[in-house]
Amino acid sequence: MRRLLLAAAVSIGLISSAHAVEGMWQPAQLPGIAATLQQHGLKLDPKTLTDLTAYPMGAIVSLGGCTASFVSPEGLVVSNHHCVYGALQLNSTPENNLIEKGFLAKTQADELSAGPSSRIFVTEEIRDVTKAITAKLNDGMSGAERYKAIELAIKEQVKACESEGYRCDVYTFHGGYSYQLIKQLEIKDVRLVYAPPESIGKFGGDVDNWMWPRHTGDFGYLRAYVSKDGKSAAFSKDNVPYRPKHVLKVNPQGVEQGDYVMVVGYPGRTNRYRLANEVQSSIDWVYPTQIKVYEDTLNIINTAGKADPKVAVKYASMVAGLNNYLKNFGGQLEGLHRADAVTVKRGQEAQLEAWLKQQGGAENTALAADIGKLRQQIAADQANRERDLAIGLVSRASLFSTAVRLTHLAKERPKADLDRDAGYQQRDWVRIEGGLKQMDRRYDPGVDQQFMVYGLKRYVALPQTQRLPALDAWLDGAKTEAQLKQKVAALYAGSKLGNVDERMKWFDADSKAIDASSDSMLKLARAVQPQLKTLEDQADARDGELSKLRPRYMQAMIAWKDSQKLPVYPDANSSLRVTFGNVQGVAPRDGVSYAPFTTAQGIVEKDTGVEPFNSPKAELAAIKAKAFDGYASPKQGTLPVNFLADLDITGGNSGSPAMDANGQLVGLAFDGNWESVSGDWLFNPQLNRSIQVDVRYMLWVMHHLDHADNLLKEMGVPAK
Amino acid sequence: MRRLLLAAAVSIGLISSAHAVEGMWQPAQLPGIAATLQQHGLKLDPKTLTDLTAYPMGAIVSLGGCTASFVSPEGLVVSNHHCVYGALQLNSTPENNLIEKGFLAKTQADELSAGPSSRIFVTEEIRDVTKAITAKLNDGMSGAERYKAIELAIKEQVKACESEGYRCDVYTFHGGYSYQLIKQLEIKDVRLVYAPPESIGKFGGDVDNWMWPRHTGDFGYLRAYVSKDGKSAAFSKDNVPYRPKHVLKVNPQGVEQGDYVMVVGYPGRTNRYRLANEVQSSIDWVYPTQIKVYEDTLNIINTAGKADPKVAVKYASMVAGLNNYLKNFGGQLEGLHRADAVTVKRGQEAQLEAWLKQQGGAENTALAADIGKLRQQIAADQANRERDLAIGLVSRASLFSTAVRLTHLAKERPKADLDRDAGYQQRDWVRIEGGLKQMDRRYDPGVDQQFMVYGLKRYVALPQTQRLPALDAWLDGAKTEAQLKQKVAALYAGSKLGNVDERMKWFDADSKAIDASSDSMLKLARAVQPQLKTLEDQADARDGELSKLRPRYMQAMIAWKDSQKLPVYPDANSSLRVTFGNVQGVAPRDGVSYAPFTTAQGIVEKDTGVEPFNSPKAELAAIKAKAFDGYASPKQGTLPVNFLADLDITGGNSGSPAMDANGQLVGLAFDGNWESVSGDWLFNPQLNRSIQVDVRYMLWVMHHLDHADNLLKEMGVPAK
Repeated sequence: MRRLLLAAAVSIGLISSAHAVEGMWQPAQLPGIAATLQQHGLKLDPKTLTDLTAYPMGAIVSLGGCTASFVSPEGLVVSNHHCVYGALQLNSTPENNLIEKGFLAKTQADELSAGPSSRIFVTEEIRDVTKAITAKLNDGMSGAERYKAIELAIKEQVKACESEGYRCDVYTFHGGYSYQLIKQLEIKDVRLVYAPPESIGKFGGDVDNWMWPRHTGDFGYLRAYVSKDGKSAAFSKDNVPYRPKHVLKVNPQGVEQGDYVMVVGYPGRTNRYRLANEVQSSIDWVYPTQIKVYEDTLNIINTAGKADPKVAVKYASMVAGLNNYLKNFGGQLEGLHRADAVTVKRGQEAQLEAWLKQQGGAENTALAADIGKLRQQIAADQANRERDLAIGLVSRASLFSTAVRLTHLAKERPKADLDRDAGYQQRDWVRIEGGLKQMDRRYDPGVDQQFMVYGLKRYVALPQTQRLPALDAWLDGAKTEAQLKQKVAALYAGSKLGNVDERMKWFDADSKAIDASSDSMLKLARAVQPQLKTLEDQADARDGELSKLRPRYMQAMIAWKDSQKLPVYPDANSSLRVTFGNVQGVAPRDGVSYAPFTTAQGIVEKDTGVEPFNSPKAELAAIKAKAFDGYASPKQGTLPVNFLADLDITGGNSGSPAMDANGQLVGLAFDGNWESVSGDWLFNPQLNRSIQVDVRYMLWVMHHLDHADNLLKEMGVPAK
Repeated sequence: MRRLLLAAAVSIGLISSAHAVEGMWQPAQLPGIAATLQQHGLKLDPKTLTDLTAYPMGAIVSLGGCTASFVSPEGLVVSNHHCVYGALQLNSTPENNLIEKGFLAKTQADELSAGPSSRIFVTEEIRDVTKAITAKLNDGMSGAERYKAIELAIKEQVKACESEGYRCDVYTFHGGYSYQLIKQLEIKDVRLVYAPPESIGKFGGDVDNWMWPRHTGDFGYLRAYVSKDGKSAAFSKDNVPYRPKHVLKVNPQGVEQGDYVMVVGYPGRTNRYRLANEVQSSIDWVYPTQIKVYEDTLNIINTAGKADPKVAVKYASMVAGLNNYLKNFGGQLEGLHRADAVTVKRGQEAQLEAWLKQQGGAENTALAADIGKLRQQIAADQANRERDLAIGLVSRASLFSTAVRLTHLAKERPKADLDRDAGYQQRDWVRIEGGLKQMDRRYDPGVDQQFMVYGLKRYVALPQTQRLPALDAWLDGAKTEAQLKQKVAALYAGSKLGNVDERMKWFDADSKAIDASSDSMLKLARAVQPQLKTLEDQADARDGELSKLRPRYMQAMIAWKDSQKLPVYPDANSSLRVTFGNVQGVAPRDGVSYAPFTTAQGIVEKDTGVEPFNSPKAELAAIKAKAFDGYASPKQGTLPVNFLADLDITGGNSGSPAMDANGQLVGLAFDGNWESVSGDWLFNPQLNRSIQVDVRYMLWVMHHLDHADNLLKEMGVPAK
């Protein structure tokens, strides 16, 4: 989910469409906007895009957080370099650093396991289950009752759907206006096939992250393996390549300025239908507070990391994430300010409410009243934000959260599976166990203690009414930083949970055993956990209230838009979506124009010889010699590297195929431009652009630099 | 000299000229390139530009470090906001901050003195004095003898030329290939007339410094005053406005893309004819070392400034300068790297030497030999760079350098004026006295001591052969930072030179009195000064050698270029120059295009309400309302703010008038783009651009926002 945190766009200039193409459309919605699709250049029948088992949708898969596509009958999958980064990391050693060198399996036998937790999800069915989920709901229910009823209905749907090798999930649309059950084949044997060196795949690194012009070869290949009888199975030498029903065809000619392009994938989350007071809170409190917390956290880690390089390694991934988010939050604030987002949202809400009033009738009056209630509920929820943050920060201490999780698990384990709290059902145990086993890789007791002290400092500043009696009892009046440090040091000194064997011992323990333990951290956890659970229940109850009110807001919104003959796409929720538009540049600021394509010459320009601008020498030489082997664009007279399009994407779209008017692969989405960072809240058709790596650059790197001709052949790309 | 440190450019795209227009041309050279001037669009006869007493050259003046022009018969002068900044500062109080508010004198009586050291220089004569300066030189002279002979000849020329109210200087061209005597009327009563508020005049501040797109209203007005009989005179209420021989006409229509434009002014210094090994040294040592020293210096000041805000105020101007240079040095390194400058220079030298060889003959062989000697001399000089830096850093301590200067002055004073060292002649005494008086404004004893310790730390690391015996004797073996701190603390404790009255007492003292003083700093100075003088003499001797060899290199260069029918312009040396070209944008990087104009809408885009992007509310409202009062460009459909041109300018050109094909004022040069920072060494015709404030923006701000219609009328601008 790095890089691609967000983006949104609409056609301008080149296209004379009736209205903008903003939208992360559910495949089933596409026939309803067929005219717009065709106006922008789609040559396929929009109806074919609704069939998940037909071409091209049958070729699109999820990696869980990223999107990918099948590109050969032998289960070869293409995605972003940053989506196969974990697999490279896992297989790298200081002596054989695959991240740095890149990797190419010349035969299937050379392919490397991407690790036991790697997944490829093939969506096989999407079914509306709104009726089943909402059947037992009634207006008399409290928020808590409503939450429980929905949770139970979802668990039942999932249980009935899941079978060996399949994963089912219920996705909430429009905050609860509708629910869909999604059934996916869960491929568990995923192997690393090919990735260019980091100096191509991550060229520009954090400096260029969210920036344009961009010159990143952000692509890599995996392969899906299943058992010989074609079923999902954990890694085994006996497994065979999965044979997908459909495979994306590659168009080695790519697209040019103005051409139709669409991206299909699994965007994670947007906030397009949030209310003005939620935007306001993000501007006034959420982003500024997070920025402060992240900066403080980086300080803690960097100071510890300077003293001990091993600590730096353990938190390197967290540091990268924090820096990434810091840059993102800065962009959010800048974009929300520039767009005057609160005023815009207020205006939209006022228009909607005016329309409801104008329409009149009991139902519209009730909808308007519910919007008022939603606004109140949101405001009320904001009263808890300081407390939730403080407790969240305390729980960031791995040792403490581990103890709480073990305590909670021991309580849930004896229950029937459907009665267990979400996250503690049998299907979750493998993940919990893996977390306990791997904790050491990202844990240093010194830093962990500082995290806990940092959280407690915020906690002790809370008003008495928001405090947890059990935590206060343990604190025993400790208030100053020195006192808190002393308390926490003693707590860690009295716990053995830093030891993996000790943790695994408690994974299977029952509550009685935990209650009897003298481990200081478990003692604290068993005192505090019930109060944390109460807070969670309260949060669930508030969510229950929102699950009643948000759908009402969306119902009003949909009716209003419908009256203008405008379709409404739902906020991103990690389910399959289609966004379409055209290849085009952008004029981000007064006096500045960005071309839709970057070219190979730009790589030479940016190269400094120093990471992240350290292009391979062979690449620089080839570009200087214009050795493009027929992959260059005749129209551009050079090799395109990345391209912009007015597509509406966000995090989770990473690795999504960009397809041309015929549904053929012409690139991979991997990021949005800086101006699109705040597009999750409010997209700006003039400014938001998605960034794709161009298929011609991919093929050229594979052929000319990395000699991956075995893969080109497998993908059916004509030899050069 | 801020902002405008450098730039250089050549026509691309729009112009189909036979060769590039790179060059800071001496006015006398222009008839020689008349065809090129006309090809680019000049409508004036190039010959008129050679007459400094005719239109338009007669209207161009120097402020000493900046350029300006007369724009009314009443001595009204226009220049950059950053060139009148000192006058604003001088007249500002915390209660009445003219920098923040801006200033407008509604009548001449309201105008404010720009201070006793403000100057306007009106060039009246330029005369070649090469023969007079070089007449007594011969090849048998040592470097030291040669240096002395040149110095004396220059002093004689200056003495013969200077008369009441006039300042004469001999400028060295091509490193000594030719010399020119320049005679200037020195106007000493300069008054502040008008400047927009800083939120317009310095909009974008350090963030936008050297950047494009730019939206800075970098302009302001002064007025020249003389005595009633028309002579130069210090400030007096009885003085009257100076009546210039010529006044620039304003063209309120401005220029548009592709139009001819020229800038006339006093560029300070370029290094276009430096050798490859000088470029190499700048890349390897000079810039990296300066960056380190400046960063360390900022650390010293910032730490002290945090502890005591008064200290921060005293060094605010130095901090601004250091940050400015740090940004500049970064740009120099980036540009030199990107241009592969050393390789380019090596190639040029090789071509020149090959041509000399090919030409053959005794003289060409001798020239080639002298180029070899020049290269050796440069390499030899570089052996002293560490020592010169260390001693320079020690001398950065104001108290120490003051003591040295007083000691030196006392020794020179008894001599005949022509025998005095340069910088210690009678004409320099006012400046020295002013410096002694005003030292306190930029002096804090704590910081000053740290500067001296910092310099000494570098000094004690020098090899024994490069050390000064007198300084070593005083150090008495002190080596570590703690020891040096102790030494310096004792030194400052024993000196009263921190007191202005004490300093002034010594200004008039003779050497005997200084020798008898028990002031610890004077004691150190009188021991060290003779050795510093020896170093200076050695440096002069090396300069004497270079003054023999550089002209030989330039002689070869000029002959070579002449064989290609290419004229050679001299490196900038603060003398009057003309650069010409056309209004045009630039494509600085792959995928990026910059328009030649920025517009008022960009101000609204950049505004954050926070300095340096805090536009006046009235300005934002006017732009949003498009209240451009007829000053907008009909072609652009909006109000232009700044514009780019392919002109070759550098520091000292700040405030230079940009003139159209008829020699009318269409803007003021105030900066170069980022890519031009390294243009002082090697300009890049594709990338280097000068940045001008557009006359239409100037007039609109004056009329619509600041109601300076009195000045518009005085300048003959038709009322709107």
